[in-house]
Amino acid sequence: MVYITRKEIFSAAHKLERKDWSDEKNKEIFGKCSNPNWHGHNYTLFVTVKGEVDTETGFVINLSDISKIIHTKIIAKVDHKNINLDVDFMEGILPSTENFAMAVWKELEGSITLLGGSLHCIKIQETEKNYVEYFGN
Amino acid sequence: MVYITRKEIFSAAHKLERKDWSDEKNKEIFGKCSNPNWHGHNYTLFVTVKGEVDTETGFVINLSDISKIIHTKIIAKVDHKNINLDVDFMEGILPSTENFAMAVWKELEGSITLLGGSLHCIKIQETEKNYVEYFGN
Amino acid sequence: MVYITRKEIFSAAHKLERKDWSDEKNKEIFGKCSNPNWHGHNYTLFVTVKGEVDTETGFVINLSDISKIIHTKIIAKVDHKNINLDVDFMEGILPSTENFAMAVWKELEGSITLLGGSLHCIKIQETEKNYVEYFGN
Amino acid sequence: MVYITRKEIFSAAHKLERKDWSDEKNKEIFGKCSNPNWHGHNYTLFVTVKGEVDTETGFVINLSDISKIIHTKIIAKVDHKNINLDVDFMEGILPSTENFAMAVWKELEGSITLLGGSLHCIKIQETEKNYVEYFGN
Amino acid sequence: MVYITRKEIFSAAHKLERKDWSDEKNKEIFGKCSNPNWHGHNYTLFVTVKGEVDTETGFVINLSDISKIIHTKIIAKVDHKNINLDVDFMEGILPSTENFAMAVWKELEGSITLLGGSLHCIKIQETEKNYVEYFGN
Amino acid sequence: MVYITRKEIFSAAHKLERKDWSDEKNKEIFGKCSNPNWHGHNYTLFVTVKGEVDTETGFVINLSDISKIIHTKIIAKVDHKNINLDVDFMEGILPSTENFAMAVWKELEGSITLLGGSLHCIKIQETEKNYVEYFGN
Repeated sequence: MVYITRKEIFSAAHKLERKDWSDEKNKEIFGKCSNPNWHGHNYTLFVTVKGEVDTETGFVINLSDISKIIHTKIIAKVDHKNINLDVDFMEGILPSTENFAMAVWKELEGSITLLGGSLHCIKIQETEKNYVEYFGN
Repeated sequence: MVYITRKEIFSAAHKLERKDWSDEKNKEIFGKCSNPNWHGHNYTLFVTVKGEVDTETGFVINLSDISKIIHTKIIAKVDHKNINLDVDFMEGILPSTENFAMAVWKELEGSITLLGGSLHCIKIQETEKNYVEYFGN
Repeated sequence: MVYITRKEIFSAAHKLERKDWSDEKNKEIFGKCSNPNWHGHNYTLFVTVKGEVDTETGFVINLSDISKIIHTKIIAKVDHKNINLDVDFMEGILPSTENFAMAVWKELEGSITLLGGSLHCIKIQETEKNYVEYFGN
Repeated sequence: MVYITRKEIFSAAHKLERKDWSDEKNKEIFGKCSNPNWHGHNYTLFVTVKGEVDTETGFVINLSDISKIIHTKIIAKVDHKNINLDVDFMEGILPSTENFAMAVWKELEGSITLLGGSLHCIKIQETEKNYVEYFGN
Repeated sequence: MVYITRKEIFSAAHKLERKDWSDEKNKEIFGKCSNPNWHGHNYTLFVTVKGEVDTETGFVINLSDISKIIHTKIIAKVDHKNINLDVDFMEGILPSTENFAMAVWKELEGSITLLGGSLHCIKIQETEKNYVEYFGN
Repeated sequence: MVYITRKEIFSAAHKLERKDWSDEKNKEIFGKCSNPNWHGHNYTLFVTVKGEVDTETGFVINLSDISKIIHTKIIAKVDHKNINLDVDFMEGILPSTENFAMAVWKELEGSITLLGGSLHCIKIQETEKNYVEYFGN
């Protein structure tokens, strides 16, 4: 069993805000992340796939296939977009990094399985100081 | 003459859009940076000051003073904000990295001079692949 | 279950030296790390907490709470200090990166539990070429 | 149980090519990695060893011993070399990052055990965007 | 006058070898860089362009135009290639980083001028420890 | 004229303290850098040399020669040492990064000239957030 990781980068806007909360409560819980006019990040996404190594190709799965799936299913939808407003798979989901990582997992899991690999980890780094990892359960 | 540089990081939303242009023209010139619902970045700001080294302190100017000025004049105004909507010193200015660097220069120059140093360079890195430098003229 | 990591940086002096060993033995085992007049590092500390995601906030635990605890319990005590001489929770402990990581775990574990999370990993990077991870047992 | 990681860097040439395949098939599966005249990378190798901390030294195993083994067994054989042509432990092995990581594991495992540690992970980063991890089975 | 820099990455093989020198002399002067079977690097290329900021766009020149030129004129020719054997603009040139940077300058200068900018610097980083800068004369 | 830069890393202890000042004044001016029991850093040193490219070798000067000089004259004296107490060329000099960069310049300039190059810049990065550059006057 070998683990292979592909890193991709995108830039997006978001804010953390619950409409069923007062401005004060949003501010208290989400701090500066609740700024009404949005803020944004250069996000780094790490997708880790595990599997047996194919003796013919030496690959777990072909990185160019992983890369295509990540671009079609994720990057094309989130890069230079607003995560709260523009991203179908985040509709109705508060865009914390935790929720975002779990949503990305759901988007990618099936396609990775079809390629013959097994999705192992979604890691999203939001700033130089914070990142989140999700292993599927 | 020695050059000392302080690096600070902030996260902000912006978009590149001229209201006197059609959506098509904005899209043509600014590409994905013109997404109506904003996008954002983790910006890295490098402020370089030059000056003679004070023989008493060994400093060009005290880094804690530079840091305070950068935080008061820039970071407090841009971090977790929308550069187009929330930042007084960017009012009426298209927030390209070039224009942003020149505006930061104007905000900082006087205070750095008062501290006894000379502002040498404002460098702003918008993504891992792009940065801009401005030397004051 | 989601894992969230906070990174913090501090600068400290230390040396590796056993007083019950001769200078020769200290030199033999600890090499240049036993230099009598100390040396130092920019340490990078990664604190990983795991937990269920709160459906109200989208957080495992609020990063600003994790950050406050790390600053109060660790950074305030070690930044710009001497690990051998100035740090209460390292008293009587040889400050190898391994021992340091285990001591940081002990300092943080209780407070992270009180916040409703579970401390998963303490990672300390001492130089660009070396780091240590401790998972609590 | 503590995990300690040593990072080393080397530069090497390679290509992905099966001689029992046509040029077309090599191109189809391996893409630009099959360029006949080779290409190369700055590889980053992370070797993670786990073990109990020695109460005398505070070390899992002495990093200078790990470093010597990595240099003798791996770096001296691969740095500024051609992985397909010059490296004994890669003879007859297609030099995908997956296969390379598994071969490095085999080279190092015995020596790490002799030092009193247990090899935990070989991680090889080939480019800024891709890395592979192998845990021994 | 503002300076804007675009960073691009590519992977290539090369060796340093003069055919009019003996193997011994090649080894003496070029060391491990003269390994007959090649070695390679992940190269990082920084292209810096200077110019006045266009008041309409806020750009020195459009980064997407710079990027297209770098890809067409450089990356497409060098990525996953052998610099000694595969690259037209390096024919007959010893591929030291210095010579490589000067050759890249010649390839890019005219196109940057046509875009209305002025090429300021070609910086090539060959390893984590070395880089070269060329300013055109 | 081409500029070539070599990066080296070392770890050292220091403190900022004037013995002719009271503890209060040291604290006021140097802040946490005046901690009596020292602190330390992983320093990064960048040495930039400029010169014409030798048409025979393609080099400004051979990087292995630059590296040897930096190791002999600087790294061997400062790595895992105390800059205030152990380093001959810093004797009697307050070890601010500014003063340190100027002292390193003095140590290296003559040897670089003997090699046929011209020392252009000493850059010392003390922490992730601060660096100093000195160009010789």
